[in-house]
Amino acid sequence: MAQSSRILIKGGKVVNEDCSAFRDVYIENGKIADVGVNLQVPTGVRVIDATGKLVIPGGIDTHTHMELQFMGTKAVDDFHIGTKVKKEMEILAKERGVNSFKMFMAYKDVFMLHDSELHAAFSQCKDIGAVAQVHAENGDLIAEGARKMLSLGITGPEGHELCRPEEVEAEATQRAITIAHTVNSPLYVVHVMSKSAAKVVSSARRDGRVVFGEPIAAGLGTDGTHYWDKEWAHAAGFVMGPPLRPDPSTPGYLMDLLANDDLSVTGTDNCTFSVCQKALGKDDFTKIPNGVNGVEDRMSVIWEKGVHNGKMDENRFVAVTSSTAAKIFNLYPQKGRIAKNSDADVVVWDPKITRRISAKTHHQAVDYNIFEGMECHGVPVVTISRGKVVYENGQLQASPGHGRFIPREPFSEFVYKRIKQRDQVGRPTAVIREPYKGSIVSL
Amino acid sequence: MAQSSRILIKGGKVVNEDCSAFRDVYIENGKIADVGVNLQVPTGVRVIDATGKLVIPGGIDTHTHMELQFMGTKAVDDFHIGTKVKKEMEILAKERGVNSFKMFMAYKDVFMLHDSELHAAFSQCKDIGAVAQVHAENGDLIAEGARKMLSLGITGPEGHELCRPEEVEAEATQRAITIAHTVNSPLYVVHVMSKSAAKVVSSARRDGRVVFGEPIAAGLGTDGTHYWDKEWAHAAGFVMGPPLRPDPSTPGYLMDLLANDDLSVTGTDNCTFSVCQKALGKDDFTKIPNGVNGVEDRMSVIWEKGVHNGKMDENRFVAVTSSTAAKIFNLYPQKGRIAKNSDADVVVWDPKITRRISAKTHHQAVDYNIFEGMECHGVPVVTISRGKVVYENGQLQASPGHGRFIPREPFSEFVYKRIKQRDQVGRPTAVIREPYKGSIVSL
Amino acid sequence: MAQSSRILIKGGKVVNEDCSAFRDVYIENGKIADVGVNLQVPTGVRVIDATGKLVIPGGIDTHTHMELQFMGTKAVDDFHIGTKVKKEMEILAKERGVNSFKMFMAYKDVFMLHDSELHAAFSQCKDIGAVAQVHAENGDLIAEGARKMLSLGITGPEGHELCRPEEVEAEATQRAITIAHTVNSPLYVVHVMSKSAAKVVSSARRDGRVVFGEPIAAGLGTDGTHYWDKEWAHAAGFVMGPPLRPDPSTPGYLMDLLANDDLSVTGTDNCTFSVCQKALGKDDFTKIPNGVNGVEDRMSVIWEKGVHNGKMDENRFVAVTSSTAAKIFNLYPQKGRIAKNSDADVVVWDPKITRRISAKTHHQAVDYNIFEGMECHGVPVVTISRGKVVYENGQLQASPGHGRFIPREPFSEFVYKRIKQRDQVGRPTAVIREPYKGSIVSL
Amino acid sequence: MAQSSRILIKGGKVVNEDCSAFRDVYIENGKIADVGVNLQVPTGVRVIDATGKLVIPGGIDTHTHMELQFMGTKAVDDFHIGTKVKKEMEILAKERGVNSFKMFMAYKDVFMLHDSELHAAFSQCKDIGAVAQVHAENGDLIAEGARKMLSLGITGPEGHELCRPEEVEAEATQRAITIAHTVNSPLYVVHVMSKSAAKVVSSARRDGRVVFGEPIAAGLGTDGTHYWDKEWAHAAGFVMGPPLRPDPSTPGYLMDLLANDDLSVTGTDNCTFSVCQKALGKDDFTKIPNGVNGVEDRMSVIWEKGVHNGKMDENRFVAVTSSTAAKIFNLYPQKGRIAKNSDADVVVWDPKITRRISAKTHHQAVDYNIFEGMECHGVPVVTISRGKVVYENGQLQASPGHGRFIPREPFSEFVYKRIKQRDQVGRPTAVIREPYKGSIVSL
Repeated sequence: MAQSSRILIKGGKVVNEDCSAFRDVYIENGKIADVGVNLQVPTGVRVIDATGKLVIPGGIDTHTHMELQFMGTKAVDDFHIGTKVKKEMEILAKERGVNSFKMFMAYKDVFMLHDSELHAAFSQCKDIGAVAQVHAENGDLIAEGARKMLSLGITGPEGHELCRPEEVEAEATQRAITIAHTVNSPLYVVHVMSKSAAKVVSSARRDGRVVFGEPIAAGLGTDGTHYWDKEWAHAAGFVMGPPLRPDPSTPGYLMDLLANDDLSVTGTDNCTFSVCQKALGKDDFTKIPNGVNGVEDRMSVIWEKGVHNGKMDENRFVAVTSSTAAKIFNLYPQKGRIAKNSDADVVVWDPKITRRISAKTHHQAVDYNIFEGMECHGVPVVTISRGKVVYENGQLQASPGHGRFIPREPFSEFVYKRIKQRDQVGRPTAVIREPYKGSIVSL
Repeated sequence: MAQSSRILIKGGKVVNEDCSAFRDVYIENGKIADVGVNLQVPTGVRVIDATGKLVIPGGIDTHTHMELQFMGTKAVDDFHIGTKVKKEMEILAKERGVNSFKMFMAYKDVFMLHDSELHAAFSQCKDIGAVAQVHAENGDLIAEGARKMLSLGITGPEGHELCRPEEVEAEATQRAITIAHTVNSPLYVVHVMSKSAAKVVSSARRDGRVVFGEPIAAGLGTDGTHYWDKEWAHAAGFVMGPPLRPDPSTPGYLMDLLANDDLSVTGTDNCTFSVCQKALGKDDFTKIPNGVNGVEDRMSVIWEKGVHNGKMDENRFVAVTSSTAAKIFNLYPQKGRIAKNSDADVVVWDPKITRRISAKTHHQAVDYNIFEGMECHGVPVVTISRGKVVYENGQLQASPGHGRFIPREPFSEFVYKRIKQRDQVGRPTAVIREPYKGSIVSL
Repeated sequence: MAQSSRILIKGGKVVNEDCSAFRDVYIENGKIADVGVNLQVPTGVRVIDATGKLVIPGGIDTHTHMELQFMGTKAVDDFHIGTKVKKEMEILAKERGVNSFKMFMAYKDVFMLHDSELHAAFSQCKDIGAVAQVHAENGDLIAEGARKMLSLGITGPEGHELCRPEEVEAEATQRAITIAHTVNSPLYVVHVMSKSAAKVVSSARRDGRVVFGEPIAAGLGTDGTHYWDKEWAHAAGFVMGPPLRPDPSTPGYLMDLLANDDLSVTGTDNCTFSVCQKALGKDDFTKIPNGVNGVEDRMSVIWEKGVHNGKMDENRFVAVTSSTAAKIFNLYPQKGRIAKNSDADVVVWDPKITRRISAKTHHQAVDYNIFEGMECHGVPVVTISRGKVVYENGQLQASPGHGRFIPREPFSEFVYKRIKQRDQVGRPTAVIREPYKGSIVSL
Repeated sequence: MAQSSRILIKGGKVVNEDCSAFRDVYIENGKIADVGVNLQVPTGVRVIDATGKLVIPGGIDTHTHMELQFMGTKAVDDFHIGTKVKKEMEILAKERGVNSFKMFMAYKDVFMLHDSELHAAFSQCKDIGAVAQVHAENGDLIAEGARKMLSLGITGPEGHELCRPEEVEAEATQRAITIAHTVNSPLYVVHVMSKSAAKVVSSARRDGRVVFGEPIAAGLGTDGTHYWDKEWAHAAGFVMGPPLRPDPSTPGYLMDLLANDDLSVTGTDNCTFSVCQKALGKDDFTKIPNGVNGVEDRMSVIWEKGVHNGKMDENRFVAVTSSTAAKIFNLYPQKGRIAKNSDADVVVWDPKITRRISAKTHHQAVDYNIFEGMECHGVPVVTISRGKVVYENGQLQASPGHGRFIPREPFSEFVYKRIKQRDQVGRPTAVIREPYKGSIVSL
């Protein structure tokens, strides 16, 4: 057995979503073979000293668009569906292990689905046990808004936000939730970017809706005031959809809701373009490629704004970066937990070290970083993916193509248990009446 | 001058929206000629003794569908518009004195407008100074819901509510408000029937939106539990769209918001069908003609549930039954106020008499009454319309065709003053930047 | 008759709370003698040309602490009461025309009343038909907070806010409303300074509580970030209780609620101290005299932030600066309305002129101005108080002692009509039961 | 080793708060020795067949008042403290393993603490790492309310609710949370009985407050309409403080919030009196002993209204009946989890069997049951407490005195981790200023 396939992480504090404890973690063949106090392991095993550090499940980025993975994150692929995929969806779900589908309410004349189409798609997702995901913005209003901004001579990145203010996001979020509820389908709202949209998700959950909101690193770590930056390239670097919000209290608010489980999981919607690429839209904000970085800094940003600021504890941190996503996408406890028999996706996290985020030092190809200059407490020191060290001493060790698609079963219990129960007990029934006996006249 | 054209209402308490005072009211030629203490008038004037009674402006039913008018109410006609009426709307507004238009979000494949059509219609209303009215229910979801209920074998009136639960109304209300806001257009939501839709209106107003919500007599006086009545004819009698809600706390909640000016005015959406006519839908609730009575009992129901119950005072009663509608539709103070030079639309109201509402005694042709059996304090004893007594001693005196269309100017100040000011001060501006100097590469 | 006692204001737009109209206003003997189109008046009458200007009711500052009055404002005196005033309150109300009393929940060991004392005081107010006013902050928590801040070495003005954060205000507001409701007493919350307290008032009103919230000019025009100013004298100048809030979105939020009638009237709590006087607290923020200016600039600030910004129209401006206060304190329509027979308290307002607020130009003795540098659209050009011009051409004309106490009747209908009705219809009743027949054992 | 000390639970579905899995559970010496698939155990071990059943952690009743325990529940004792306990609290916490203290805002002149006393008590709890618990009702208002009801001749059980309506509970809840926040202390609100109080807790959590709300079985399973029952004994049986609420939508609302983690844990406040004992208050509701049953039926009621109704899944059920309480009171994962090394407190639960709750069949001494007649799906078939079967085949097996006090460490991480972090990063700092140089004059 190769050396690298057996690892003992010693002396750390193992953090799971429910509690923390000082435990050793022994890894063999890509799996966690044991978790315990003072584990005795064969000689020749590589030992990683985690004294004073946390041992946490590898992050699961619920929402990224990229080839290469980093830092133990697993991309949960989303499949964008159009309007006539019904059969294809079933095949993907049953045969290919895809258990989530993403629908767009934005991007009119391209991806945008109408309400009756959403109704059909959500129904279909429910039938096959998949998680319906939705990009919630009103595409009609964005199209009108963009036209208006351009007609006012507003062509810069600020127009990107002005043409799709947060109520355009909140409205669509409310609508998606309403549609999902009429078919008793679960719903997953990707990239919740505004206070008002987050409030909609939160209220729906309080009313018992099975809905999950996903804020992303960008929305938790920075805000939309950057769109008004005098430097075009700086402003354009923050363009994504839905946009970051100019209200500077937004990130703190989203983090409060995330800490409180009003929002459930975090992603990045990572999709990076260089300044040169962004410049395609230099004369017209509607042509700026949408996308920001985030995947590399996601965990640091959430730790800093969430845990270091005292909004959530380390256990909730594990839940929002890993465990809850694993539950939703039916990977738990194989993923998302440090426990015997789980996959050996582990991060050794040092909560005491600080680093400053910068494009100069990051590992991504893109030439700017939306978190530029942010001081972060808490950094990963070692990252292990399926039993292999992929990051250590500040160096990526991942070989290209290390990422792997993980087939997922449909009907995740975390998502569907209540749904099924409601279908059983909540079905409406007809009132039993005597036949109507009167005569009918025409109007 | 004919006797009947000069009337002195003596000894009553004149109630306007801002305050009440003991005053005589002298009417001449269809106008209020004077309001004062101990008015001296020419001999031969008919004197109505209003001692111990209230003298209030004739009610304005904002929302009715009928030929004949009653009890001093003036129907504010609504014109249902389709999608290509732009020119026609302008003509109606400029030449015909129509200053409000009603749009439907329900009734798929018949009246229903899509979001971009609503956007266009609201823009057009704003350009011509009209009030955009909206029937807010999600037509797509109603269509799907109806199909589902019928497939479950639910064909009775309870299916009418089950296929369009209140979130279908609330969603559309939120959407209409969002669309209106993107064009900075005022909005008038007709027949707000549910707590959640009312909450949406109320929150929007608190955020500064120029939006008016109209509960109707049916929604304030009864509820949707009747749809589950064992007697088909009884249940069918309550069918209207949006439906009454089964939550029995709905009427009280709507009245609280009406009292607090979260909701603004009251209508009836009066549109009556006999039991025989309703029976067209005896095997399929989607075929039951939609409509309930209300116009005759509107003021009594609001007095009973609002004033008698201590939720609003007599001045607010005048506001919600008359003055605010007059302001919105640009008729104030010609209508909606007891003041010198106003139109002589006056009701002498006795707050101490009680009556019991019943189909047996009402003046409408329809053979049932949704408020059947309700004990009401407060009844009209005399009603004067444009200077003529049209109701007295329990007898209608109106001659057919007495109703009259009142041309209304556009750009009501009550509605449009803030709108215009916001257009002036709130216009977004572009950020001034150096031209972008980098090179662009293709993606 | 002296020349100055007869004035014709010609060509202006008369603005009342319900509507505006182009009318002349004729004043005689301190009263408005007539309001009409093209009024014909005796020769020798002084004519003020108001063409292009607004003619509005003199402002009523609901909340000021001063000797001299200005700009048509009438101070509505408040009488601070302790715990054993029961008889005295009755005398003040019945014999002296005092119809409001102010109670403190703050200022522990000085003015602070406990809950049972508030209960007694509110009951007493209700019995005599007075308006119970309350300074809502939790005095116990302020005392503890001040101790803590000083122990942390925080002695500057920022400590003033830190020791009484907004939840301390919101909590007391909620408590006062709850106590008032248990005795079905109306309540008037003076100086609502925070979003959370305003939200409490607003929710209570929506639930039907007879409660009025009063934001003040300072809270609507500036914010508490000034407490962190590096210049002690600047920071100290803003010290008042409850404090201004550091959340910069507070003023806009309060204005939104004021526009929407969630908050009712505006005051200033004007109580000015010079920088030298403020310096008493230079080493200990608890010793800084509490008070800011405001009375002179109140109407300009509200016009600028409310009307010019498009949040309210000119009619609502009149309501919040004058009419509603007149109604609450039972002076309407003698005060608060431009109408025949009303007192001739009139301001000619030019909405087009702008001015810049500054301590250099203001008429108050104090040597700084919390609104320093604010550009205001809308200025008073002539102010008439009880028929006399007291301000004109930028000059105060008021002779000392011009202010006058106006006796006010108790049981204002605006406040008490619903209260009385609820007492009549809302009284709880006992359940009628058979006598209990079982035997009782001791525990 | 005695037979009974080794048990294998075979073939069941082990349900923990994070997930469920089909596993065997092997118990030895009062501990769970192993959890796994197809466990091989020594011969002579008692085997319990759990096929088709759930294996869940024994319930932890957070709030009961009784001698004898039942069904695997562990009473978390609460110590009622007065105002001068500071030293005693420290001793109890450090030496006796008591880590929670309960304070009363109700029961004026008996237990009621004033705000400054609560402030001191919460501070002390925080210093020693205990959980401050609070009975949140405004004692002053209850005293006044009771006086008023009796003066109106309302002496029956309905007076109990009328004198302490839900806003009296909500107000105190808000106040307690505010006080706790000023000292950055966690707070645990016992018996949350009303929608408005629950909303207060829920909003505070969303704002990031470390506050836990505990609904009880009575509040989740029935409502306060019973106080108006014609039968005195029936009505009196429901008397407890705070009372059940007459709004029939209360139980469902509380369950929604419990499902959504707005409310955290469930108790019973079990404290039973016979009808004879209740009759002490037959002529005066204030003398009716306060208390209802609940402990025996708690889990069934929550399963029925929560899980069977589809509001929560089986994992959340375990959280709210066991795991979260264990975390709050620092017993987790020793208690509250089915895992290796945890205490062997286990319930074998059959979700398919139904039973009808009745005083005729329950195991408590009291002669009525507030859930009388409720049909429950889901019953315990075997209950094991610290390795011993205490309930089986419908028979209690517990020998008297089996209950045991479990010493608990202070500073539960679940409660205190965020608190400590906030203390570190959130401390306010003084603004650095030049000394003030002006002269001071006396006022």
